[in-house]
Amino acid sequence: MAFNTENGPGVHEQVPGETQGFVFNHTMIRVVDPEASLAFYTKVFGMRLLRTSENPNGEFTLYFLATTEGDDVPEDDSERAKYVGRREGVLELTHNWGTEKDPNARYHDGNSEPQGFGHICFTVPDLQAACDWMDKNNVEFKKRPEDGRMHHIAFVKDPDGYWIELVEHG
Amino acid sequence: MAFNTENGPGVHEQVPGETQGFVFNHTMIRVVDPEASLAFYTKVFGMRLLRTSENPNGEFTLYFLATTEGDDVPEDDSERAKYVGRREGVLELTHNWGTEKDPNARYHDGNSEPQGFGHICFTVPDLQAACDWMDKNNVEFKKRPEDGRMHHIAFVKDPDGYWIELVEHG
Repeated sequence: MAFNTENGPGVHEQVPGETQGFVFNHTMIRVVDPEASLAFYTKVFGMRLLRTSENPNGEFTLYFLATTEGDDVPEDDSERAKYVGRREGVLELTHNWGTEKDPNARYHDGNSEPQGFGHICFTVPDLQAACDWMDKNNVEFKKRPEDGRMHHIAFVKDPDGYWIELVEHG
Repeated sequence: MAFNTENGPGVHEQVPGETQGFVFNHTMIRVVDPEASLAFYTKVFGMRLLRTSENPNGEFTLYFLATTEGDDVPEDDSERAKYVGRREGVLELTHNWGTEKDPNARYHDGNSEPQGFGHICFTVPDLQAACDWMDKNNVEFKKRPEDGRMHHIAFVKDPDGYWIELVEHG
C-alpha cells in the first residue's frame, strides 16, 4: 500500500476532491535590487528566469525563477506562462521600482522580530561542495555546517538577507 | 531550440555546473497552532503531511507537507525522507512548543511593516471553484477576484494570517 499521510494533530485524512489540481506553485519575496538578486539566484543557485511581468501602473516588476535545465521550457511566451503556472518550485521576486536607488531601502528577513517567514531551502547533492561554491561566490553564511549542533545543514543569506538553508537530498 | 532564459538585469547566461542537482525544495513559515495549520493545509489545500521532525532539545517540531496524490510516496520512513528532500513544492511549518497556549502569540505576515516575505501561491484549475471551496471552509479572504484591478487572482489568509495567492494555471 502506498503511503497516504503521517498522523498529526488536525490532519485531514483524505485529499478533498475540491483541491484536485491545486499546485503549490511559488513563494514571493520582495527584493531591493533586482539586478543583484537575479545575478545571485541565476548564478549561485543556477535558477533560470522564466517569466518577467512589468506593471507600470503599480510601478513594480515580478520575476519568476525556477531550477531547470531549460530543455523542457517552451520558447513561446504564452506556453511558457502555462508551464510556469503548472509547476512547483517557482521563486517570485517582487521589485518595487526605485528601491535599488534608495540607500535606506531594506527588507525584513522574518527571523529577527517580528518573526514569521523563516527561510527557503535548496537541497543539494553534496553539502561541502555546495558550501565551497558559496565561498567561491563570496556568499555570506549565517551558519556553516560545523557551527552549532546541526552539522548536516548550512544557512546562507541572499542579497536582501533572506536565509537560504542548504541540506543534502534526503 | 529550447528556451534558455529570459533576459533581465544581472541574469547569468548559463547554469553553472556547480549547481547541478540543486532543488528549490521548501519554504518555511512559523505557525502558532500546528493543529489549526495542519487542518487548514491538509483539508483546504489538500496537502499531505509527509514528514514530522520533533526536536525536544530545541522544543520545536517541523512539519513537511506537499501536494501529492500520495501514490508516489514511499511508506518506508527513510525512503520517504529522501523523496521529500528531492522534490519541489514542500511547505515546512515550524512549531515552537507552547505558542498554541499563549494568547499573545502571533507571527508577522511580512506584508505590513516591516515588509519582506509576501506570500505563497497555489495555482488552481478554476479560480471561481477554488474561491467557492474557500468560502465553504470559512477561509478569510484578503482579496476576492472582483476586488481591485486584478480580477484573475485572489488572496486568502492561512490561520496565522500569511497570505496565499490563488491564480489559475497559466
